[in-house]
Amino acid sequence: MSAQTNTSGWSGIFRPLDWLLLAVPVSFALRYVSAWRNDTLLFIITGLAIIPLAGWMGRATEHLSARAGQGLGSLLNATFGNAAELIIALMALSKGLTGVVKASLTGSIIGNILLVLGASMLAGGMRFNRQTFNQTAARISATSLSLAAIGLIIPTVFHLASDRQPGGWTPQAEQSLSLAIAVVLFITYIFWLIFSLFTHKKLFTGAEAAGHAEEKDAAWSVTKAVTILLMATTLVAFMSEFLVGSVEAAREQLGLTEVFVGVIIVAVIGNAAEHSTAVMMALKNKTDLSLGIAIGSSLQIALFVAPVLVFASYLFGQPMTLEFTLPEIAAVALSVWIVTEISGDGECNWLEGVQLLSVYVILAILFFFLPEPAHVQSASDSLAPAAGSAFNPASETNSTAPIPAR
Amino acid sequence: MSAQTNTSGWSGIFRPLDWLLLAVPVSFALRYVSAWRNDTLLFIITGLAIIPLAGWMGRATEHLSARAGQGLGSLLNATFGNAAELIIALMALSKGLTGVVKASLTGSIIGNILLVLGASMLAGGMRFNRQTFNQTAARISATSLSLAAIGLIIPTVFHLASDRQPGGWTPQAEQSLSLAIAVVLFITYIFWLIFSLFTHKKLFTGAEAAGHAEEKDAAWSVTKAVTILLMATTLVAFMSEFLVGSVEAAREQLGLTEVFVGVIIVAVIGNAAEHSTAVMMALKNKTDLSLGIAIGSSLQIALFVAPVLVFASYLFGQPMTLEFTLPEIAAVALSVWIVTEISGDGECNWLEGVQLLSVYVILAILFFFLPEPAHVQSASDSLAPAAGSAFNPASETNSTAPIPAR
Amino acid sequence: MSAQTNTSGWSGIFRPLDWLLLAVPVSFALRYVSAWRNDTLLFIITGLAIIPLAGWMGRATEHLSARAGQGLGSLLNATFGNAAELIIALMALSKGLTGVVKASLTGSIIGNILLVLGASMLAGGMRFNRQTFNQTAARISATSLSLAAIGLIIPTVFHLASDRQPGGWTPQAEQSLSLAIAVVLFITYIFWLIFSLFTHKKLFTGAEAAGHAEEKDAAWSVTKAVTILLMATTLVAFMSEFLVGSVEAAREQLGLTEVFVGVIIVAVIGNAAEHSTAVMMALKNKTDLSLGIAIGSSLQIALFVAPVLVFASYLFGQPMTLEFTLPEIAAVALSVWIVTEISGDGECNWLEGVQLLSVYVILAILFFFLPEPAHVQSASDSLAPAAGSAFNPASETNSTAPIPAR
Repeated sequence: MSAQTNTSGWSGIFRPLDWLLLAVPVSFALRYVSAWRNDTLLFIITGLAIIPLAGWMGRATEHLSARAGQGLGSLLNATFGNAAELIIALMALSKGLTGVVKASLTGSIIGNILLVLGASMLAGGMRFNRQTFNQTAARISATSLSLAAIGLIIPTVFHLASDRQPGGWTPQAEQSLSLAIAVVLFITYIFWLIFSLFTHKKLFTGAEAAGHAEEKDAAWSVTKAVTILLMATTLVAFMSEFLVGSVEAAREQLGLTEVFVGVIIVAVIGNAAEHSTAVMMALKNKTDLSLGIAIGSSLQIALFVAPVLVFASYLFGQPMTLEFTLPEIAAVALSVWIVTEISGDGECNWLEGVQLLSVYVILAILFFFLPEPAHVQSASDSLAPAAGSAFNPASETNSTAPIPAR
Repeated sequence: MSAQTNTSGWSGIFRPLDWLLLAVPVSFALRYVSAWRNDTLLFIITGLAIIPLAGWMGRATEHLSARAGQGLGSLLNATFGNAAELIIALMALSKGLTGVVKASLTGSIIGNILLVLGASMLAGGMRFNRQTFNQTAARISATSLSLAAIGLIIPTVFHLASDRQPGGWTPQAEQSLSLAIAVVLFITYIFWLIFSLFTHKKLFTGAEAAGHAEEKDAAWSVTKAVTILLMATTLVAFMSEFLVGSVEAAREQLGLTEVFVGVIIVAVIGNAAEHSTAVMMALKNKTDLSLGIAIGSSLQIALFVAPVLVFASYLFGQPMTLEFTLPEIAAVALSVWIVTEISGDGECNWLEGVQLLSVYVILAILFFFLPEPAHVQSASDSLAPAAGSAFNPASETNSTAPIPAR
Repeated sequence: MSAQTNTSGWSGIFRPLDWLLLAVPVSFALRYVSAWRNDTLLFIITGLAIIPLAGWMGRATEHLSARAGQGLGSLLNATFGNAAELIIALMALSKGLTGVVKASLTGSIIGNILLVLGASMLAGGMRFNRQTFNQTAARISATSLSLAAIGLIIPTVFHLASDRQPGGWTPQAEQSLSLAIAVVLFITYIFWLIFSLFTHKKLFTGAEAAGHAEEKDAAWSVTKAVTILLMATTLVAFMSEFLVGSVEAAREQLGLTEVFVGVIIVAVIGNAAEHSTAVMMALKNKTDLSLGIAIGSSLQIALFVAPVLVFASYLFGQPMTLEFTLPEIAAVALSVWIVTEISGDGECNWLEGVQLLSVYVILAILFFFLPEPAHVQSASDSLAPAAGSAFNPASETNSTAPIPAR
């Protein structure tokens, strides 16, 4: 998003990617005009439509933050930075698609710290021989990610271990354990906010200041910012509903598995706006900012969005656990491992960007080849979901919806 | 333990926690007076009694060390720092309770590097924005911990892998493998002592000097130190016998599993004295010392106490292996991973303390929800212990004691 | 290999270990004279013969590199540094012994970063209290190793996860996945070469310059270097054929498993020449060089030799996957973990050398106790190889050769 000259009104605030906004009316048409109803096309069009809308939500949030002042503003940014992904996930959760939800959580986490960060380091590294960033800030962000990874590993460890006991594994125990861990992660996120926004703000200030300096638009009035935010949010909500409603038919026709769609496709869509910002910042040698965007976004997903989804699932009456599949756990753990190594010394180069992207490609290859989980395959046969096993958690609900819950 | 003015005799040497010593006679009463026999109460009272006794053992050891001179003294400290835990474990081992032994080994390791270190970093971090410590010393301690974690992981890898072979897994192979690994760990500990007490003493001297400076009591005479040490050790031995003898009944009534009691409760009791010292040192910005206490104690458990227990088990005629359950291995590996990250840059802050405590809470949640292993459940039915499986090692002995061996 | 005075001709270029060259004619005799045919002896003698031959290949390559100039020369070194191991592995692959191939890949990786590097750090640390090396170069090499470890872990994760799906696991999917990952690793190796030989050459120059300075022989003419290289390569090819042909009978008589022979013995033989060079460099305080030899060799095995072997297996008509057994994966992952920790701060001491050697000994203990995999045991009974399982991949080919494929 290049700097723009200071203009008033609405005409000067459109960005390069915004032509994709044309996809919005097209998606409404595809959805409501029966003659044109085509799930695969609807899936693709709504996916494209979400990209600029997420960008607008982000910009509106930033303008509101600038108005709200440093502390509250950063808090706004930190909480609603992933609002688009949260909306998509809540929509899927309300339909009981916990499998897609977890897959997209995984995808957002690894997408941010591998794809976004890797592309940033590679882009910046092509221009600068060596880029540096605040080592302490990077290290403690990476440690928070490790903590999150631990929180996402333990529920499956519990399932594996208790499967072998006569008392066995019960869904209720798994849900209670997950809820307790979600609370711990959420509390840790609050402490993280206190640390990064208040007590040790200086470690991250480089990022903050640079971020605000990039906004060369005329500052939006509160009315303008709130209006745009509400409009964008509403449209994203509609797009999410269309997207989630068409995912089943679309992926079958495209020959992709539910897991691949969740981990790779949904995550890339949701992160596209941040992706371009992070790469731009790296090209301007503002590495603290690109690292902050990428790792900060992953942190928010793992320590804020995931717990919130667990809490929300209880409100929806269909408790979701934090039990992920083995490939998802391996993906998150290995990604966090690599990122911790790369960010630990406060400097980066183009090869480290290549390494992050290589890991992402390897994980994408894994998710591409994984066959469809049983409970999804049997959906069309209206069979009961397959019995729960450690790596293929069955329905966590009593729903008999045509789309099986996981 | 605040500094006390220099007084002679015995009157000035009591510390705040010492009122718990009243629990000692109470425990004797509960144990031997039939009318008052109450296992749950006995378990709690002896647990409380061990706390100040362990503190006295530590202080006596430190005074003897001061008398013995730098090298031999540090060696004394390094070897007998965990004498209380060693005694409790030997007591449990003699009764064939290898499950409790391994659980308490796990609990001591993770308790020191997560609970003690986390509380220290948090306490110190509330007072100081940033605390530093010798990076080289911290890193090589963390690497030794990783080596120990590897030594505790491999026996279970062996079991998993050989289960799938026709030749299969045999208890004898597991015991030989464990004994060989125990020897390697023990030898590594000796090299660690040579490194930290002789060839690279300077890296750790900060800790040593500070430790001795804290002792503002009048130096105890050798007679006084040895007497107190012997008395405290004898009492700890009795307390251990009561504790271990009442653990079964007590935990059933408290509704806790054997694993939870071993990993969380026994470990917290045994480490309480060190815990308060480490927190005090952090509050005085002597971070090298608190790190040295916490990580050094974990190292001693993993590289000295664990091998010694393996050797001792052969003397007792009931060889114990180093095969831990999956949750125990996950707990140790993940703890060592987090500590390595946090201590790698030579500085810490309050959030890193929170992160360590969060991991501890998550692991405690895991051990809280884990159901009772089969061999313990079936004890009261006098059934044969469940057949050995990789994550639930059955009896390693031929003992037909009412308390099943693991 | 001590520096030698500048002499012309051939007489001055023999090195201490070269008396082992006597093993070459002996091995020919043992192989072709029926009366003397003894597989165990042949195995041992050819093993000893390879050691000096690999050294000669290395020296010839270095002289050619010096002639070819900095860039192309380093490229030569980087590609053919492990030519001996590549030849042995190709020989085994052509006979369908994919189990031995993978075991020796594992052994080369862990042998270089644990045994060679550990011995170097220990030797250097006995002489120097503290040795330093370029931290950035060491860290990015370690990260490349982590990437390689991830590439070797994912195929087994795939197998474990897809086993539980109704669609199940198919050898074809595993082969396609492995081929795709091999391509990614190979491309990453090319980028690594661009980084270490061109764009960021300076980080590694210490190693380069020092390496060339050590060659105090008169520079060999191109004719001489090429002649020696061809002769040594031919002899290594013959030795490999004898070695691989006799491994079955020899190990049975020596009572060793195929895995132990592959992981420990074959790897030690192949790395012996580099081993002595690395230790020598450490004793001369040229730590960048010893680290470069050890870690660089592991990198080459994991990111170049392994993918090349996968490609070659397709040419041989017997596709090999990158699916390793659990112990092999654990060994590689844990080794890379420890090396990443130790090399991350740019300095080392004797204890870190001891730690690396300890991990190697623990892993050797593991591989020593592991029982023979099913498919090897049943070979003599001419039974069909055991059905494929995640940790014991069965035959990947349709070959009915007497030596079972894995």
